[in-house]
Amino acid sequence: MRTRALASEFIGTLLLVFFAVGSAVIGVEFIGTLGIALAFGFTLLALAYALGPISGCHINPAVTLGMLCARRIDVRTAVGYWIAQFVGGIAGAALLFLLAKQVPGFHADGAFGSNGYGARSAVHINTGGAFLAEVVLTFLLVFVVLAVTHRVAVVGFDGLPIGIALAVIHLVGIPLTGTSVNPARSLGPALFAGGSALSQLWLFIVAPLVGGVLAALVHRVTHPAGEDRQIADEVAAAP
Amino acid sequence: MRTRALASEFIGTLLLVFFAVGSAVIGVEFIGTLGIALAFGFTLLALAYALGPISGCHINPAVTLGMLCARRIDVRTAVGYWIAQFVGGIAGAALLFLLAKQVPGFHADGAFGSNGYGARSAVHINTGGAFLAEVVLTFLLVFVVLAVTHRVAVVGFDGLPIGIALAVIHLVGIPLTGTSVNPARSLGPALFAGGSALSQLWLFIVAPLVGGVLAALVHRVTHPAGEDRQIADEVAAAP
Amino acid sequence: MRTRALASEFIGTLLLVFFAVGSAVIGVEFIGTLGIALAFGFTLLALAYALGPISGCHINPAVTLGMLCARRIDVRTAVGYWIAQFVGGIAGAALLFLLAKQVPGFHADGAFGSNGYGARSAVHINTGGAFLAEVVLTFLLVFVVLAVTHRVAVVGFDGLPIGIALAVIHLVGIPLTGTSVNPARSLGPALFAGGSALSQLWLFIVAPLVGGVLAALVHRVTHPAGEDRQIADEVAAAP
Amino acid sequence: MRTRALASEFIGTLLLVFFAVGSAVIGVEFIGTLGIALAFGFTLLALAYALGPISGCHINPAVTLGMLCARRIDVRTAVGYWIAQFVGGIAGAALLFLLAKQVPGFHADGAFGSNGYGARSAVHINTGGAFLAEVVLTFLLVFVVLAVTHRVAVVGFDGLPIGIALAVIHLVGIPLTGTSVNPARSLGPALFAGGSALSQLWLFIVAPLVGGVLAALVHRVTHPAGEDRQIADEVAAAP
Repeated sequence: MRTRALASEFIGTLLLVFFAVGSAVIGVEFIGTLGIALAFGFTLLALAYALGPISGCHINPAVTLGMLCARRIDVRTAVGYWIAQFVGGIAGAALLFLLAKQVPGFHADGAFGSNGYGARSAVHINTGGAFLAEVVLTFLLVFVVLAVTHRVAVVGFDGLPIGIALAVIHLVGIPLTGTSVNPARSLGPALFAGGSALSQLWLFIVAPLVGGVLAALVHRVTHPAGEDRQIADEVAAAP
Repeated sequence: MRTRALASEFIGTLLLVFFAVGSAVIGVEFIGTLGIALAFGFTLLALAYALGPISGCHINPAVTLGMLCARRIDVRTAVGYWIAQFVGGIAGAALLFLLAKQVPGFHADGAFGSNGYGARSAVHINTGGAFLAEVVLTFLLVFVVLAVTHRVAVVGFDGLPIGIALAVIHLVGIPLTGTSVNPARSLGPALFAGGSALSQLWLFIVAPLVGGVLAALVHRVTHPAGEDRQIADEVAAAP
Repeated sequence: MRTRALASEFIGTLLLVFFAVGSAVIGVEFIGTLGIALAFGFTLLALAYALGPISGCHINPAVTLGMLCARRIDVRTAVGYWIAQFVGGIAGAALLFLLAKQVPGFHADGAFGSNGYGARSAVHINTGGAFLAEVVLTFLLVFVVLAVTHRVAVVGFDGLPIGIALAVIHLVGIPLTGTSVNPARSLGPALFAGGSALSQLWLFIVAPLVGGVLAALVHRVTHPAGEDRQIADEVAAAP
Repeated sequence: MRTRALASEFIGTLLLVFFAVGSAVIGVEFIGTLGIALAFGFTLLALAYALGPISGCHINPAVTLGMLCARRIDVRTAVGYWIAQFVGGIAGAALLFLLAKQVPGFHADGAFGSNGYGARSAVHINTGGAFLAEVVLTFLLVFVVLAVTHRVAVVGFDGLPIGIALAVIHLVGIPLTGTSVNPARSLGPALFAGGSALSQLWLFIVAPLVGGVLAALVHRVTHPAGEDRQIADEVAAAP
């Protein structure tokens, strides 16, 4: 199987969780919501250019589901990507946890950059609102990913809009739910936060996947069908 | 008619209002004026790369008017775009209103990200000043759009300067009027804000359109006439 | 003579002063030093892509001097550019002044986004320090401009590093002098601020020009001689 | 030997230290942690496009070590680069020190933008944590550099993700250690800060180098072997 692509998805998701969630765990008092939003977007932007040619740099199960619905990848690749992403997300959270424990006075205590609703949302958004938010927030991400990697897009101008879109998504979403839009980003931190972070985890797995499917459906309306660029496949298929 | 292009303008304006105006409605206490300015610019940047090849990603009646004056599109296309943009803006505001209502204590109460002057401006700018501001702010946006999609520009380097220009425009304009520069962005939120947001709405429709026409006139002086790239048309015209 | 290029330098400098200096005059309490720094960088980035193919988008006499020293333009073009830039800067400041007067309680009173040292510097830097600062700050800008428009650079990747460099320059320089690095940006606001803004103006004309010459000298060491790209000339020379 | 390339590494490291460390020394009360993080990333982004075609714009001994491990450069070039980088970093710190002394009330007093752990870390991270942090932070930088200059990457899209990656690295790392990820960036300021900045310096030389080697190892797993682009060499080898 495509070892390089799986390694790419694993290391990419690990780095996304370590750096982006890490900016929230370590830096919130220093960089604020704006800084955290930029950290998420900037990490994805950099990784998109580093890993895009290898695996497409999904590093997000909702993106992989959108790519599957748009018939850009097959089921077997998708399943491999999902496993690599969830394992990578857990590994990134573990590495972040190991680092954070070296800071005197650190306690994960149910937060640790995990997502939440109700009492665990900064604005106390209700469950239905959190679900709706995650669907629409993820819709933008996956819709942009599908569009800027479509054959009508100019080559190279994919990582920039994808990363910038994730920054906007966090500018809107951090006050609401902390912003998941990525089940693999949510699982790892929730495992270390524990408690209600785990009992609320289902929403941050289901809602982003719904948003990803919706994006693939609307993409079919706005963008013409036909062969898309498959830069990643050539490279990944190489021995 | 060009269904893909109209769908693109509709969904693009919907997403612009939901995310950019949404960052102001939901996030102002978290991300401040700087964060809101970046949210507007970043949303447009991402959408420009996602939808630019389909419809040109005007998602703004003043941009469409500028394109019409510069003879890049015909009247029929312009009218279709305008309808799609206004309907998309209203749909985006409605979706944002539905989401915001899930936050305990939320009240639209005459604000809801709408634009304003006089008592509704952060610096209490007078009516003439607000009109002048919106004309000059819109001038920059439409002038940049016309220039970076002109045949002398390097392909691909359009969404970046367009989105970045919108961020600057908001850095200057948010204290003055909240920044419209886009009648479709102003109409939707004003409908949900009601009251004086509606009675002041005329300025945020007329002034941006004046700015767009001025930009097309100056563009004719700075940029040579002749055939421009029409990437969007080929794609949009396809079945 | 090259009317399009001169019009481009005029309108570009006008817009740079209106938007970038305007963000400081209108927005400082809303967007802070970081927001102003981004406004300067972002405005230049957008204009570089809009006007670069027409005139090179110097919109700064120090850049034009650097280009002259590097033999990219001739003396006659440089003189024309300088006049267009200074007139454009004054026009931009006038338009900004007209707008600011529509805000109740506005007074230009010796500030109005002008540059300063000693008591007019946020950190009270002395005259020699201000001169040194402006030389080094301008050095980075002109060095980057010369390098990224040199024939070894990748086409299109010029406006991005140039705008981003100007943002960094302001992050460092705003506390020191308010950051000129551009005599045309300093002249206009100083005329409207009056008083000591005018008596200190000499430094913000001389020091940036020294920095521009130094940049051209170091550029000769780092970058090989030979024919450079002259995209702007072909277009500007057209009727 | 390749004089242009060495001059490029010298001037690049000088400018990186002057501007990025300078933003922290001069501007921290004005621009905050977010502004400093952007100053580091933006400076590298601009220099990457200015100097990348000449020397590859490593301006960082850990990047040069990673390039050496990935067999993109030979040992002799690496040694020359390292010398140029350390000398450039000291020169940049000296120029910054000269400037800062023109600000009334300035004292270097053991800080001066130097890196630190324990009592000299904003969150008082312990030595092991600081070492781990610097390894992982540097890993991202060098991994991104190796990947986006690899032959599978799109030409031109290297300086953008590299600069943006450095911004993220500082968003996470400033609270921990002040962020080195670059021994040449750490040496210069430490010489002027003196005291415990010097006794802690070893960590900010060793840990980034370990991170650079790790990045080269993982890069070998994710990215296929074979000939890479060597844009810089052609130019640098020219007389």
